[in-house]
Amino acid sequence: MAIHSFPVIDIKNEVFKDQFEVAPNQELQLGGSKEWKISKRRLSGGVSNGIDLVEINNGRLSMTVIPTRGMGLWKGSCDNLRLGWDSPVENLVHPSLINPTLFNGIGWLKGFNELLCRCGISWHGAPGLDKVKDNSDNISETPLTLHGQIANTPAHRVDIHVETDGKGTLSVTGEVDETMLFGPRLRLKTRMETEAGSNWFRITDEIINIGGQTTESEILYHTNFGSPFLEGGSKLVAPVKEVTPCNDRSAKDMKTWTVYRDPVSGFIEQCHFLDIVADNNQETVVMLKNSTSDHAVSLSYNVKQLPSFTVWKNTQAVEDGYVTGLEPGTSLPNNRSFERSNGRIISLAPGESYQTGFTLTVLTSAEEVSETEAQIRELQSDTKPEIHQSPISKWTPGVE
Amino acid sequence: MAIHSFPVIDIKNEVFKDQFEVAPNQELQLGGSKEWKISKRRLSGGVSNGIDLVEINNGRLSMTVIPTRGMGLWKGSCDNLRLGWDSPVENLVHPSLINPTLFNGIGWLKGFNELLCRCGISWHGAPGLDKVKDNSDNISETPLTLHGQIANTPAHRVDIHVETDGKGTLSVTGEVDETMLFGPRLRLKTRMETEAGSNWFRITDEIINIGGQTTESEILYHTNFGSPFLEGGSKLVAPVKEVTPCNDRSAKDMKTWTVYRDPVSGFIEQCHFLDIVADNNQETVVMLKNSTSDHAVSLSYNVKQLPSFTVWKNTQAVEDGYVTGLEPGTSLPNNRSFERSNGRIISLAPGESYQTGFTLTVLTSAEEVSETEAQIRELQSDTKPEIHQSPISKWTPGVE
Amino acid sequence: MAIHSFPVIDIKNEVFKDQFEVAPNQELQLGGSKEWKISKRRLSGGVSNGIDLVEINNGRLSMTVIPTRGMGLWKGSCDNLRLGWDSPVENLVHPSLINPTLFNGIGWLKGFNELLCRCGISWHGAPGLDKVKDNSDNISETPLTLHGQIANTPAHRVDIHVETDGKGTLSVTGEVDETMLFGPRLRLKTRMETEAGSNWFRITDEIINIGGQTTESEILYHTNFGSPFLEGGSKLVAPVKEVTPCNDRSAKDMKTWTVYRDPVSGFIEQCHFLDIVADNNQETVVMLKNSTSDHAVSLSYNVKQLPSFTVWKNTQAVEDGYVTGLEPGTSLPNNRSFERSNGRIISLAPGESYQTGFTLTVLTSAEEVSETEAQIRELQSDTKPEIHQSPISKWTPGVE
Repeated sequence: MAIHSFPVIDIKNEVFKDQFEVAPNQELQLGGSKEWKISKRRLSGGVSNGIDLVEINNGRLSMTVIPTRGMGLWKGSCDNLRLGWDSPVENLVHPSLINPTLFNGIGWLKGFNELLCRCGISWHGAPGLDKVKDNSDNISETPLTLHGQIANTPAHRVDIHVETDGKGTLSVTGEVDETMLFGPRLRLKTRMETEAGSNWFRITDEIINIGGQTTESEILYHTNFGSPFLEGGSKLVAPVKEVTPCNDRSAKDMKTWTVYRDPVSGFIEQCHFLDIVADNNQETVVMLKNSTSDHAVSLSYNVKQLPSFTVWKNTQAVEDGYVTGLEPGTSLPNNRSFERSNGRIISLAPGESYQTGFTLTVLTSAEEVSETEAQIRELQSDTKPEIHQSPISKWTPGVE
Repeated sequence: MAIHSFPVIDIKNEVFKDQFEVAPNQELQLGGSKEWKISKRRLSGGVSNGIDLVEINNGRLSMTVIPTRGMGLWKGSCDNLRLGWDSPVENLVHPSLINPTLFNGIGWLKGFNELLCRCGISWHGAPGLDKVKDNSDNISETPLTLHGQIANTPAHRVDIHVETDGKGTLSVTGEVDETMLFGPRLRLKTRMETEAGSNWFRITDEIINIGGQTTESEILYHTNFGSPFLEGGSKLVAPVKEVTPCNDRSAKDMKTWTVYRDPVSGFIEQCHFLDIVADNNQETVVMLKNSTSDHAVSLSYNVKQLPSFTVWKNTQAVEDGYVTGLEPGTSLPNNRSFERSNGRIISLAPGESYQTGFTLTVLTSAEEVSETEAQIRELQSDTKPEIHQSPISKWTPGVE
Repeated sequence: MAIHSFPVIDIKNEVFKDQFEVAPNQELQLGGSKEWKISKRRLSGGVSNGIDLVEINNGRLSMTVIPTRGMGLWKGSCDNLRLGWDSPVENLVHPSLINPTLFNGIGWLKGFNELLCRCGISWHGAPGLDKVKDNSDNISETPLTLHGQIANTPAHRVDIHVETDGKGTLSVTGEVDETMLFGPRLRLKTRMETEAGSNWFRITDEIINIGGQTTESEILYHTNFGSPFLEGGSKLVAPVKEVTPCNDRSAKDMKTWTVYRDPVSGFIEQCHFLDIVADNNQETVVMLKNSTSDHAVSLSYNVKQLPSFTVWKNTQAVEDGYVTGLEPGTSLPNNRSFERSNGRIISLAPGESYQTGFTLTVLTSAEEVSETEAQIRELQSDTKPEIHQSPISKWTPGVE
């Protein structure tokens, strides 16, 4: 296999490319498209100053990776369909301007506007106290902030790759460290790739315990969609074993929990927790389709890797952030203390790593949408979904 | 009208000019001065690294705007009179180095050294708990930090303008967003302008609720002056309906509340809250004049827009920050919870905006000082000032 | 004396050199070495983005100074012996990414990986509440964060110097301000120098109270060594009046307190507090030697300037940060409130300054090691060390 690799950020070796581009030329052609390009640039000015971006365009689908925000995805498009949403935070915010402790630990929200924001990787979920061992081996109550640190940690190494085999593969790899003395020593290694001319984008993550002691980890993929995939009448199509509202407020609409509303000013978010059905290989797929079922996005992944799934229905006014989150995770977005007591935290021995990830596919015709829907129906076929009408104790804190 | 506009920062369109300058040339001449210039530069190194500055020099008066610190004013001068003060923080500090939660919520002080620092725009004033609605519509006690966030938020858009009509107008416009998911979505749009050859500088602000729900806002203009306008014997000249000390400490000098002292090591700050008299158009003017009444600065503004006025007398040792603050605001610098309960918080419907601002004028001769003094006397004429000798309950928390 | 000086950072005068180098040329030669060089560069990308480094290479010994992290030392080497350690935080972290309030005030650890990290200069030591005067002269309980602010404060002025007298001296001088309105106004002025061709590096610090009121200060030099100076069987050689474990955990190994272990996964740190013997001029030397006594590092300093000494034995797994800290200080790394009540805080009148510092020498042969050991034995000769088996009340909080 012919791979052409280009380092663009490598702190240790003091490699840094302010601007970089690789595109078709006489020596480098891909079978799947003649219009592909991978480019790297740096934003200047305002809250975005110093943010590095890598844009992968496969000729049909385009994605903008944000090395400076933990290798998240800013936005994308496929066949002119926009992937992403309109957050009240309009511009990308450099992590140095984010103070996660603000407002009782929700300062993370001041930088939240991505198509994909990883939450983790030491913890994610609701802010609040957890019991943590300190440097003297004592347990002390320590405040965790909303959704963890990884999205506000710049990658220390980023490489761009073009592989010519088959239709050709475009990818970016990155490394992000979440480490400190007396704390977990976790490294995220990600490969984010797409095939030239395709309608999909795959994320393959490895969380490595590079420390000398067994360590906990959690990850949640906060993928976020607004228009045109989200609109009044959009539907979540998912093969479900069990569904529950996350709280009493969310319990009010259980009859229509798969359906999305039009934007409503002052709407209070609803969340549902799902146990997803998979095939024999533990593979599954979940889809968000628009009201006319002619375009959709799907997430395909392995439920053994990502056993928890959260649907976030935040159908507020467009101006306030009309958005839904499809959030496969190793656990639910409750505080880590609750997830631990329910056995949902990963434990990694020294040197051990956890493989996970998902593929995002953009379905751009009624036929494609209906094929994926059939696939999901097939996954559901043997399983009668259990729909809880109110929160349950294993998934929501404070329920008896 | 002929306007020449030059974008220098525009994150959304990825426009950024590291260095920029516009000055008289064969095609661009202004009637008011032949020596004007507007320039943009970026500071490098130390705590100031990455700070963008726009300097407007009208040929007589010069002001340095700080896009990176919420479009504040670093310092200025007019006829060789310095506008500004000597803070213990000698250099401009990039917002990424400011942690507002430090020291029980006064970390803002580690970056405070400007001639004009806007406080707001979701809240300003003393740190402490306020009751805030969270994402689940529950009220929770949330710690607010000293003087809010706007001064530590970089502008995402900045344009420079030269208008040739009349004597010619030099201006910079800027936009700063104070937004987050589940939080207020406020945008500050400012125009900061001066006439070629003049002795004044005008700030016209618009606070826009770009969100989908009704939102609160507060703003206070923290204008700060040291030598040569502040010295022992300097006086505040203001048309006053009502004056009160903000606390018992400030009550000690009510007989001489308009007079400033020489620097005194260990001096504890005094604050006075004022209700200012205005003319029939609600316009007023307040002046700080030096001991010999031959130079002064005045602030002219509309009391309907800015109904509260705070005088901050911080006549400490020069080394510790000998300074006075003249601070017109929509409210007093108490914690927002107290200002709300006294009806002094702005409420903005979706799309609604609040217009405010002021004009700073530098009076450089005894004649000019005495003219403005006459104007203030005229404003005062029909009103006998009510001078409270101790704090009053509507303006100071904890008073019965 | 011929001095060649080169400013590389000077915010006030807007001087900044992205890249700079001075090396031997026809006009500039030093007696001690033909291979010396001083260079300045800036790191780009990831967590290190924007960090300025000054590397001083005297032809034999090399040190990398970090102006952006308070003029600390990143790492060094002498005759191919590495000076430094392998922190779980692999890359230098820009101060703008450090939030000291995280995790109950230990966020400082997320940037801790240097050979020399100054702790101070308003306070250092354990996080926790101290009583501090506020702007209204009231005492309020204020949370102090681990080890203070200086290591996360960029220097506002940095100059490089080459002196040709004698063998030739290479140095960098820097200034770092730790100031705020209503807070201490302290300036660190440092000179960090070495002689061409030598095996030593000297740090001369001056902490100046540039404010108008008497102010407290503390400083601790957190020098940190891993392999090859630290290994199983390495020894601390120090002339000791009194030694005590800092806590019960550290008390367990008092019989072998001078000896270091091999790395042990999950090892809990031990600390010892020392009162060091000095000569008639108050000069002393402390040494860390490897297991075979053929190389060592020593710290020479004045015990009147630095009366407290802490040994930090953190012999965890290499992956978790196998390291020892030799930490001369003006006080012990307890919370400032405890150090104050034991009379160990410096008080500086307005304009007063405190001189301190140390010389780090690399001993690269058994002969050199044994010479320094003899010198330490000589210092010890008249003094029988008092070895406490458990914590004592004057040095450890909570002991009766």
